[in-house]
Amino acid sequence: MVFKDELEKYKNIVDNELQKYLEKKECPEKILNESMEYSLMAGGKRLRPILVIATYELFEQNIEKCLPYAVAIEMVHNFSLIHDDLPGIDNDDFRHGKPTNHKKFNEATAILAGDGLLNNAYIVISKDLENTEDLEELKTKIKLFNEFSLAIDRMIAGEYVDTEYEGKEISENYLEYIHLNKTGALLTLSVRMGAILANVDKKTLEDLTNYASKIGLAFQIKDDILSEEGNEEVLGKPVGNDKKLGKCTYVSKYGLDGAKEKLRKITEEAIDIITTYGERAEFLKELAIYIANRNK
Amino acid sequence: MVFKDELEKYKNIVDNELQKYLEKKECPEKILNESMEYSLMAGGKRLRPILVIATYELFEQNIEKCLPYAVAIEMVHNFSLIHDDLPGIDNDDFRHGKPTNHKKFNEATAILAGDGLLNNAYIVISKDLENTEDLEELKTKIKLFNEFSLAIDRMIAGEYVDTEYEGKEISENYLEYIHLNKTGALLTLSVRMGAILANVDKKTLEDLTNYASKIGLAFQIKDDILSEEGNEEVLGKPVGNDKKLGKCTYVSKYGLDGAKEKLRKITEEAIDIITTYGERAEFLKELAIYIANRNK
Repeated sequence: MVFKDELEKYKNIVDNELQKYLEKKECPEKILNESMEYSLMAGGKRLRPILVIATYELFEQNIEKCLPYAVAIEMVHNFSLIHDDLPGIDNDDFRHGKPTNHKKFNEATAILAGDGLLNNAYIVISKDLENTEDLEELKTKIKLFNEFSLAIDRMIAGEYVDTEYEGKEISENYLEYIHLNKTGALLTLSVRMGAILANVDKKTLEDLTNYASKIGLAFQIKDDILSEEGNEEVLGKPVGNDKKLGKCTYVSKYGLDGAKEKLRKITEEAIDIITTYGERAEFLKELAIYIANRNK
Repeated sequence: MVFKDELEKYKNIVDNELQKYLEKKECPEKILNESMEYSLMAGGKRLRPILVIATYELFEQNIEKCLPYAVAIEMVHNFSLIHDDLPGIDNDDFRHGKPTNHKKFNEATAILAGDGLLNNAYIVISKDLENTEDLEELKTKIKLFNEFSLAIDRMIAGEYVDTEYEGKEISENYLEYIHLNKTGALLTLSVRMGAILANVDKKTLEDLTNYASKIGLAFQIKDDILSEEGNEEVLGKPVGNDKKLGKCTYVSKYGLDGAKEKLRKITEEAIDIITTYGERAEFLKELAIYIANRNK
């Protein structure tokens, strides 16, 4: 397996599904649609939907079943980015090397496009439930719908705490709490969705949830490191904003070296868990390494 | 039937359900919860959830079944108010005689509280689906979940057009389009939810949908009239903002007299439809009159 090719393959599947959805979407408001599409197709890494599909593929082959959930979670992720970037929250002008939604359109459009993306995630899920005929499968998906909505609740709470504690000293526990919710909730959900849709047993679900929590935390630590010492051009957004806003991050708390050491350790733990699943888990193992080593 | 007593009875049922939900809600973010609760319990008329319950009661007695949907739609309504009031959209400082959410808390909190309320509506629905054992009932509710999410999509689109066309001349069709979506989608949904949960036949659903569209439009025309000549103290918000923003309303389009004539006509049409349902529809008939005559 060449990891980069696999990653690209998954990314294309996701991009293609999103594009298909956008083309079918009935909404008479062209510019509002454009605004949603602008952020949705702005060149994100698609990490969350890729986790859904790759986890599902550990156990099952026909990925059709998990695609609506991959699409829905990417919509939610982009809703959260649009709202986080708003002047009232992080006030960011660039993302993925492009103007943020409110800079490209305007603030009102960005607020409503974010709302629209969150809501469209639920349109996707409701349609999938409508199309599910098998009763056991339906029940599983309804549980998933509930877990999905609760994870988003946690994500919003995490974002709130992150915003409210700017410039304030917080404890290690609280820093972890913010990130477990703000970034972790959705990343963990992604892996769990893939696993639950593949009907894995309890022990496997527990293992994969642990793997997901760890790569979720690693993702956030790496984000904090990149925000401190990343390359602006590669990142597509200014470096040093966290410091300017007085955000409490893994770097502000432990220093660059301390954060890097934490990242190394937690990535190793994630790899240890996923390695027990043998060769078929090669992609998820490489993905953990990719998260720790990425430069954007 | 004394209409005011009935209205009060329904309002208490809704307030009570919302309070119960807020008390049970698990969310570690106290202030974010407070912010959601602040708007949710700020003294709204509860028109949408009352429509759900009263329509359901035309046909069925045990209202437990429709309460989650009454709660969910009121959450969505309040999400839309919080976001509409934001500086980036209508920039309103007062609602129901109290500071708007971003004035009471701050902009970041208001954005996230709005997001949270929209998402919590779906948490409520997902829990209700999880608790539904009867397969036919489950299928009905899944269809409703889909209709719910599509109506919110229309509401967001309507709000977008309303914002984008500030200060611009628009056609009669477009004015109707804005209001059919912005206000009408959710009001129509309320009535349809009550009717669908009560398993009414196709013809009845059509009738009630027509009734709902008409009171929805009447509601918006009355809103436009109150925004022009209402009493600020009674309304709890400044009068004349629509004009200041150059909003295209029924008053700006047809003048005060023209708008009042339209309101009278459309209210009569709504009454004609609902009167065919006899005495049990007395409350919904009175409600149409109340919408046209209210002073806040």
